[in-house]
Amino acid sequence: MNRCIGIDLGGTRIKAGLVVDGRLADERVVDVDGKDPAAVIAQLERLVRETEPPAHDTPVPVGLAAAGVLDAVAGIVRESPNFPEWRDLFFGRELTHATGRVVTLENDANAVIFAEARFGVAKGAPAVIGYTLGTGVGGGLVLDGRLYRGERGMAGELGHVTVEPLGRPCGCGNRGCLERYAGQVGIIETLRETPALSHLVDGSSGPVSDAPRRLADLAAHDLMAKSVLDGVGRYLGQAAAALVHALDVTTIVLAGGIANSPNTFALIAPAMDAELRRRTFRSMSEGVRILRAELGNAGGVLGAAAVAAERLAG
Amino acid sequence: MNRCIGIDLGGTRIKAGLVVDGRLADERVVDVDGKDPAAVIAQLERLVRETEPPAHDTPVPVGLAAAGVLDAVAGIVRESPNFPEWRDLFFGRELTHATGRVVTLENDANAVIFAEARFGVAKGAPAVIGYTLGTGVGGGLVLDGRLYRGERGMAGELGHVTVEPLGRPCGCGNRGCLERYAGQVGIIETLRETPALSHLVDGSSGPVSDAPRRLADLAAHDLMAKSVLDGVGRYLGQAAAALVHALDVTTIVLAGGIANSPNTFALIAPAMDAELRRRTFRSMSEGVRILRAELGNAGGVLGAAAVAAERLAG
Repeated sequence: MNRCIGIDLGGTRIKAGLVVDGRLADERVVDVDGKDPAAVIAQLERLVRETEPPAHDTPVPVGLAAAGVLDAVAGIVRESPNFPEWRDLFFGRELTHATGRVVTLENDANAVIFAEARFGVAKGAPAVIGYTLGTGVGGGLVLDGRLYRGERGMAGELGHVTVEPLGRPCGCGNRGCLERYAGQVGIIETLRETPALSHLVDGSSGPVSDAPRRLADLAAHDLMAKSVLDGVGRYLGQAAAALVHALDVTTIVLAGGIANSPNTFALIAPAMDAELRRRTFRSMSEGVRILRAELGNAGGVLGAAAVAAERLAG
Repeated sequence: MNRCIGIDLGGTRIKAGLVVDGRLADERVVDVDGKDPAAVIAQLERLVRETEPPAHDTPVPVGLAAAGVLDAVAGIVRESPNFPEWRDLFFGRELTHATGRVVTLENDANAVIFAEARFGVAKGAPAVIGYTLGTGVGGGLVLDGRLYRGERGMAGELGHVTVEPLGRPCGCGNRGCLERYAGQVGIIETLRETPALSHLVDGSSGPVSDAPRRLADLAAHDLMAKSVLDGVGRYLGQAAAALVHALDVTTIVLAGGIANSPNTFALIAPAMDAELRRRTFRSMSEGVRILRAELGNAGGVLGAAAVAAERLAG
């Protein structure tokens, strides 16, 4: 029996769960206590202790998923959007020390996509190109059945592929990144620039905005709203076409808050599919399918546990 | 001792050589007899017989590199720019049948980049993102020390990454592909659109044009010519930034006729490097280096042989 603890460390909440053979057996959700690394580590240590099954011989390994550029090989948080002060922090080592357990760090989008490849909609696919459409756009690559990490464990930043060379400035230093158009913050910016739709913006552009869902509701009978979501799909298709040409992968997964809504997915995916085909060799777009993630909010915890299990298996 | 025959099948010429332990021991160059698959296969069969070492117990394996979209797994030529009528042709099987030897098919750019990773400037690098700047722009990826082929052996079409969303139409169906700006045909198009430099275009835009070399000579003292090559570098940097974000690879190789000239490389690489850094997370561009291929014209034959050897090794 394969048991791991998966933790999904968000900017405001922490989800932790015991995952047994790919199933979430028990889950806890708590608010993040503060931005100080020591406080967060103490909180995580408590969560691990509470989540661990009562009868166990050896400490259960822990996988932790978090946003940002992580050096997953060395367990370093390089750049974190949720905890901007955590720069080049040896978080994996600290947490291992605090918990006495093997801790594997992974980018949260990588974890979500890996979970879909292992237990979700892409189960059995040899390779996956995956996007998480949330506040920003994350990504994950599964190649030859394994989560692809790159030389330093930082691979999969698929939201930072340029789709508009002279476009909106992005926090990564680039202009016109996919995430500036296809993530929630990007969609809200597009709505603000569209007078007929700016009423959908509810003042907040933070992670709790409901604008993308209201946009999708409106798109059922409003052509302008539909064209905004078509645009999101086209940008995703353009970005995915580049990766299909580079990587020859036929399974594409859309995950994250925006794609988890079947409504919104149904509006984005056809435009994405059409644009992908327009921009790809016929012989390479053949057989490509775009799938909606099916694990929903549990993806982060399941993926973090799967990453810990994969590491254990060597 | 590791012996393989490498063949580089171009649109007008065929190069074939015996490769012993990564060294080209013997090379033949002949003109392509015609566009008919049967004639080309007969010609290749003769070349293999002539190239094979005189004393051998078992037939030496053969690697064949050719341009186009190849299903390297099944040995199928899907789309070929040099032989447009060869569509979905089971070339590997035919050639295996004709020669009585195991024949491995590989895209020519993949072969060139793999050769640089095995025997050339990127020897020892765990991963390589490689571009071949020739008539068009080809590409090859080496990940975890192995040539990365993708699900159907068609990976590495790095010249067909979009750099101008509404740009020049490309044969692949897309608009604004990298190859339409950074390959010879693309550079000639840019020169044609630049009145002060259109005199560099020698009427021919075919594979023998000397325009890129003359452009580089002029760029030593002409700002306009320099800015055209800066533009080539910037497009390459934009395309490479996307792959660095996706793949976390730190070694980038430029190969092919245009990059083989140290002069031209020295004009393109700095602009590429600067653009790449501008468009990438600081933590991910750290340590990235752009290298000039060092095997020159032998890369195709060496890479084809290396691919055959890799397949043999399993």
